[in-house]
Amino acid sequence: MKHIFIKLFSICLLTVFFGADVYSQTIQVNQERLTGLIHELSTYGKNDAGGSDRVAYSTHDIAARKFLLGKLEKLGLEVSIDFAGNVIAKKTGSNPKLKPIAFGSHIDEVPNGGDYDGPVGSMGAIEVMQTLIENNVTTLHPLELILFTNEEGGVVGSRAIAGQLSAAALTTKSSSGLTQSEGIRAVGGNPDRIMEVKREKGDIAAFLELHIEQGGNLEKNQKQIGVVEGIVAIEWWQFTFKGTANHAGTTPMNMRKDPMLPAAKFILAVNETVNSYAGAQVGTVGKIEAFPGAGNVIPGEVTLNLELRDLSSEKIWKIYSELESKAKTFAEENGTELQIVHQEVASEPAMANPVIQKAIENSASTLGLSTMYLPSGAGHDAQEMARIGPIGMIFIPSKNGISHSPQEYSSPEDIANGANVLLQTILRIDKELD
Amino acid sequence: MKHIFIKLFSICLLTVFFGADVYSQTIQVNQERLTGLIHELSTYGKNDAGGSDRVAYSTHDIAARKFLLGKLEKLGLEVSIDFAGNVIAKKTGSNPKLKPIAFGSHIDEVPNGGDYDGPVGSMGAIEVMQTLIENNVTTLHPLELILFTNEEGGVVGSRAIAGQLSAAALTTKSSSGLTQSEGIRAVGGNPDRIMEVKREKGDIAAFLELHIEQGGNLEKNQKQIGVVEGIVAIEWWQFTFKGTANHAGTTPMNMRKDPMLPAAKFILAVNETVNSYAGAQVGTVGKIEAFPGAGNVIPGEVTLNLELRDLSSEKIWKIYSELESKAKTFAEENGTELQIVHQEVASEPAMANPVIQKAIENSASTLGLSTMYLPSGAGHDAQEMARIGPIGMIFIPSKNGISHSPQEYSSPEDIANGANVLLQTILRIDKELD
Repeated sequence: MKHIFIKLFSICLLTVFFGADVYSQTIQVNQERLTGLIHELSTYGKNDAGGSDRVAYSTHDIAARKFLLGKLEKLGLEVSIDFAGNVIAKKTGSNPKLKPIAFGSHIDEVPNGGDYDGPVGSMGAIEVMQTLIENNVTTLHPLELILFTNEEGGVVGSRAIAGQLSAAALTTKSSSGLTQSEGIRAVGGNPDRIMEVKREKGDIAAFLELHIEQGGNLEKNQKQIGVVEGIVAIEWWQFTFKGTANHAGTTPMNMRKDPMLPAAKFILAVNETVNSYAGAQVGTVGKIEAFPGAGNVIPGEVTLNLELRDLSSEKIWKIYSELESKAKTFAEENGTELQIVHQEVASEPAMANPVIQKAIENSASTLGLSTMYLPSGAGHDAQEMARIGPIGMIFIPSKNGISHSPQEYSSPEDIANGANVLLQTILRIDKELD
Repeated sequence: MKHIFIKLFSICLLTVFFGADVYSQTIQVNQERLTGLIHELSTYGKNDAGGSDRVAYSTHDIAARKFLLGKLEKLGLEVSIDFAGNVIAKKTGSNPKLKPIAFGSHIDEVPNGGDYDGPVGSMGAIEVMQTLIENNVTTLHPLELILFTNEEGGVVGSRAIAGQLSAAALTTKSSSGLTQSEGIRAVGGNPDRIMEVKREKGDIAAFLELHIEQGGNLEKNQKQIGVVEGIVAIEWWQFTFKGTANHAGTTPMNMRKDPMLPAAKFILAVNETVNSYAGAQVGTVGKIEAFPGAGNVIPGEVTLNLELRDLSSEKIWKIYSELESKAKTFAEENGTELQIVHQEVASEPAMANPVIQKAIENSASTLGLSTMYLPSGAGHDAQEMARIGPIGMIFIPSKNGISHSPQEYSSPEDIANGANVLLQTILRIDKELD
């Protein structure tokens, strides 16, 4: 009891003498409690190979949500599940006219995934809420913690909030085996009323997401905090080179129309062309198939997937146009035909708000943490939230740049650093944003 | 009755005045009857797409065999089914000391195959027997017509005769769904006694096979008859380039170990290297797969199959050695590892006997047919029969070089030409071989 009085007295003194700034920089998250919570969450769905099978809508996902709902309620937050199954925990602000500052991430994983992609940001958000409550901090803006539904299976929860979820998307099968619609119902949502969760532009003051980088840039550059400039646009195309399937023994080399050759030239051209531009753009051929696909048959068709990512859609289409023209030349050179299908991935670039980027950088600096600016090459819930308000993302290092794997790892210090930057950024933009 | 006497009298006169040569060149197969028989056989297993589903051991195969057994018995031949399920029809010769001249082919097809690959040679053999019988020709050597079991599924019947069928091969699944062992039993063989069908070197005087070319050389060169120089050796390898699977969005281009790049370089190198040698050798990459094989994941592994074929095993291994060295360089250039597995295809080159090649060429010339010498790029039962005696193969043109497809086609004239060359070659080598 005596200790609490001393603590409260010290806080009052600091507040009086140094103002809120100094006060807010004094509070820190509890690293041990945070990593303990991440560890506790990881027990839901851990498989024998050390990976996580907590795919969205699975029994593991449902059990983990139940555990976290209880935890959030115990903190005294106003907890609810919206019609999209998103878990929402609200904390009132002192100015009733302001829109909420939202923050959060997801707890679902890819099949045989890791323990950090999602959990760092979502458990970090809970730890931030708990730290604010323990320190009796009331922000001007209301705060809203969101644990999004099925991020890995198509950012389902955040798309619903952004009004981007089509009726057709609800009928698709998720990794759990359930359709999105069945899954949403299983986690307490109501797909029939999912349109009601849609928010309009301006309904939030900001959205912040803490996340592991999933790449190797921070580690390679020995930086502690990544200030995300934006989330890249992603474009997908399927290229099909069509030749003539024939007997690999009886068809002379000069009588072949072998689609494997232009496909091979194209794979090399993707690498060369993407590298010929300055910047952080990436291009990948991750999938290739030959039909009929037998060792003793010259393929009749080879299909491959091209993916391009960059913060600038314009640059993506410029590179694509160069590659399309090269592919046509390759197809002609080998007497094959070319068919290109642009595939819907519904992923526009989402730029982070400059004020929030600066707030993240300043928060990190004040905490003595090194930073670097970088794009997010992966998609995140923040990308959808950008449709309804300004966003910011905080990255922490991923060991060896690995994610979506049981080998995924971020250190307790880095995780606590990220959560502290999230906390300080919330307090900072609480004053800077309307 | 009157007609038969006149016919017999004419034959006697011809034989007396011009010798057997002129006599034998006078008799010809019945083109209409032969193409009618091929058509009748094609009704067994014809599918809605116009293709043939008469895979070995299927109900269609069994029904077709029953039909042909009846036909051969009606011709007065000594008909039997050996323990490997091969249908054998014997005609005695005038010299009991001589080993048989064997000839034949297969009636089974690949799934959704055509009507000519196999049937031309096997129905051609039946037509030749019928023509000889009708013309009362008795050869010095006994004649043996063989319809081999399951050619398309691994030259099973001829391998059994050559003593090359392992116990393990009998347990493999065939296209019919039955194991080889079950299938052999279904067509009247006895897998438990299959070793007994093995023949020793010298047990046959020769083996002849008439077949469609399955390639476009005869058509392109406007030749009617192909004199097969030999059946090529086939070698298979699986190349695996191993890199690091990673997130296609978050992994910068210069931090990737993408196995797709050396794989693409290798595909182009196969084409260039094979073409850099003079000759008819062919090299094919018919199969390629990326793992995990998602559009948004840099592959961790790419596997592909290399097949090389040539009449010279030495040349095959020389080309392979060059390609192996190039593949190693490509793997290193992209920071990936290379694993090569040489796969068993058990296919050695089988050279056609020079005397028989010449006999085929002379037979064709005497019939006024144009010829060209060429290798067989495809495997055939003749390849296995070469282990126990001298072989020869007669090719006829395949329209557009297509085979193993419902589009497979050879004209009635070309089919009859092939059967007439088979007939004349039998009569010719009957005198030339011991």
